[in-house]
Amino acid sequence: MSDTLSRLRGELIAAGQFFHSKGWVPATSSNFSARLGAEDMLITSSGQHKGRLDDNGFLRADLQGVSLETGKRPSAETGLHTVMYRRDPAIGCVLHTHSVNATVLSMRLEEVVLAGYEVQKAFPGVETHESRLMIPIFPNSQDIPALAAEVNAYLDAHPQTVAYLIRGHGLYTWGTTVADTLRHIEALEFLFECVYRQLLLDR
Amino acid sequence: MSDTLSRLRGELIAAGQFFHSKGWVPATSSNFSARLGAEDMLITSSGQHKGRLDDNGFLRADLQGVSLETGKRPSAETGLHTVMYRRDPAIGCVLHTHSVNATVLSMRLEEVVLAGYEVQKAFPGVETHESRLMIPIFPNSQDIPALAAEVNAYLDAHPQTVAYLIRGHGLYTWGTTVADTLRHIEALEFLFECVYRQLLLDR
Amino acid sequence: MSDTLSRLRGELIAAGQFFHSKGWVPATSSNFSARLGAEDMLITSSGQHKGRLDDNGFLRADLQGVSLETGKRPSAETGLHTVMYRRDPAIGCVLHTHSVNATVLSMRLEEVVLAGYEVQKAFPGVETHESRLMIPIFPNSQDIPALAAEVNAYLDAHPQTVAYLIRGHGLYTWGTTVADTLRHIEALEFLFECVYRQLLLDR
Amino acid sequence: MSDTLSRLRGELIAAGQFFHSKGWVPATSSNFSARLGAEDMLITSSGQHKGRLDDNGFLRADLQGVSLETGKRPSAETGLHTVMYRRDPAIGCVLHTHSVNATVLSMRLEEVVLAGYEVQKAFPGVETHESRLMIPIFPNSQDIPALAAEVNAYLDAHPQTVAYLIRGHGLYTWGTTVADTLRHIEALEFLFECVYRQLLLDR
Repeated sequence: MSDTLSRLRGELIAAGQFFHSKGWVPATSSNFSARLGAEDMLITSSGQHKGRLDDNGFLRADLQGVSLETGKRPSAETGLHTVMYRRDPAIGCVLHTHSVNATVLSMRLEEVVLAGYEVQKAFPGVETHESRLMIPIFPNSQDIPALAAEVNAYLDAHPQTVAYLIRGHGLYTWGTTVADTLRHIEALEFLFECVYRQLLLDR
Repeated sequence: MSDTLSRLRGELIAAGQFFHSKGWVPATSSNFSARLGAEDMLITSSGQHKGRLDDNGFLRADLQGVSLETGKRPSAETGLHTVMYRRDPAIGCVLHTHSVNATVLSMRLEEVVLAGYEVQKAFPGVETHESRLMIPIFPNSQDIPALAAEVNAYLDAHPQTVAYLIRGHGLYTWGTTVADTLRHIEALEFLFECVYRQLLLDR
Repeated sequence: MSDTLSRLRGELIAAGQFFHSKGWVPATSSNFSARLGAEDMLITSSGQHKGRLDDNGFLRADLQGVSLETGKRPSAETGLHTVMYRRDPAIGCVLHTHSVNATVLSMRLEEVVLAGYEVQKAFPGVETHESRLMIPIFPNSQDIPALAAEVNAYLDAHPQTVAYLIRGHGLYTWGTTVADTLRHIEALEFLFECVYRQLLLDR
Repeated sequence: MSDTLSRLRGELIAAGQFFHSKGWVPATSSNFSARLGAEDMLITSSGQHKGRLDDNGFLRADLQGVSLETGKRPSAETGLHTVMYRRDPAIGCVLHTHSVNATVLSMRLEEVVLAGYEVQKAFPGVETHESRLMIPIFPNSQDIPALAAEVNAYLDAHPQTVAYLIRGHGLYTWGTTVADTLRHIEALEFLFECVYRQLLLDR
């Protein structure tokens, strides 16, 4: 087993424990992956609790989502990870989490518009709070290939996108490293709580 | 003492610590049980703080709720546990927790209707977010045998039910194992917080 | 140093750490005491952070609030502790905490009325959720002897009272032991969060 | 390396861990400093996660904000720290945090007015809850020298100020020691949550 695989697995286990402490990975929701090389990735296997992952909670898969380990099945949503790695060789990590705010906002809004928040600078290429960040929301579907194709087409048309929500289902975001992607999750969850509180005060 | 009893007790102690960290077992509220065999169960004894349980916080009781250990009294709500084990030999664990959301929603609603949430798939037999889950709410009562009979009749009529609330009093859910039932609690508490936030935004 | 003093001090230190983890003792607010004997008590000294107490954060004082240790000054609110110990020899602990909900509710309401909550059974003498619990709210004052006299007169007239709030200033409750009083705090903070959420939903 | 530097660094690392546990330093937001002497300070370096700081996350800089360590760049907002140390030789610590409440309130209000809260006594010179504390809110800007000059002019005109907010960007406060400044943060975050809940109830 390579050092890289072992290191990435440790980073994803720690990420899961942090998310669990925040309530962002309830029950067996959510899934995490990290790129291993040009053609393969490490991804959480199906049905794991993401706050209590151990070394056995992962498998290697190729970028078509085919398991490279006999007897282990990747997460049902693997296609939403592989679509990102195939789009962009610079992407090294994809994290899907499932917070209350991501869920509720995705059921109330058509998209999440972020403007005027200093924390927007946590995203690559954003230099000022005066920028405007759009987080699209896709309808939920159990047809993952169709959903992945829809995401892919949207990202072709909107290449600056840093994350998206699936309605009633949570957040997907990505980055060059696990640490990068964690920073995106922290910034987005912070912003979602701000947006929720703003919505309440607006009513 | 059997290995099974020791393992189940450890799992229930850990469950209580997790619930306490979330504020779901305030004061000496809540009670937990796990099936030991065809005719007996392990249940928390009366008056314990469920976040600081130790080995002495439990007793063996039969499925009529009679203590099998001299000098130890089972929880006052034992009848709500035994009714589940008698109904269904596949049930291996019953957990009653007492969160703010379970309490407040049970005092505002006639029933909790869950629809459109991906997390609903945490429950057995639910394959899609398009399903519709109904959590009934029973009036609170200090007459536990009467309440148990009411629950039993409701479950006969609605066998797909995964959990219920007692008004002002919290949540009961069950599963084949402690881990299973924990997953239900996590999913339900997540959903209750979503429902609470939706209610606030709806006003 | 007596074993009792050492044990009580340890219990109050642990209570402070728990309260701090919940955000109920911000900055140097709050103060804790426990009865040592018929004529003396242990109380937190002035200006301590109650979440990071050590053995030096306490002093012995008599039930008129006079320090029994040279060079150590008891909390400015000592008179609200001694009035309780003088009233009732069965009282073994008085805890004052300072949560957001205790603060906000005390500034919005004339009194907190609790009815229909199962958790009310955490209080001595309460056997059913059908009881009705009244938590009075006193105007804040920097004149502690006057405030203590007002509390004393109220408790004479309403001996079933289990706790009170001071407006903008937090909660006082008491019990026979530290564990007892901790149970009251947990139950009350749970109920205050319920009341806050009910108020929001009522608007 | 001096004992003072080592001690202060340890205090700021611990402060960051505490803030992170509360969600007040999301992503790589926030920055912390402490005075080392008449002419220099310790400050977090650019781009660090403030909840996971280690010894390498800091650098020495002079009070014009010039790094005294080759290859290390101070935080982009260094000028908001140095302006305070230059104003007042008694200031020993400046902390900038970035909570949801500080962010949301700064985007909804012209200033935060605090009155009637006992916790106001956590600030130097405040002896009673009857005082009135004003926390000004400055428009956000990426031009830090201009923002620092604006803060400086405000503080000249309002020397009793204990903290300020930058719109959409968080809180700045200061004190004679790290412990002092931590107490201010805890008190202010407590008060911001109170103000947010009051605003919601007012609507």
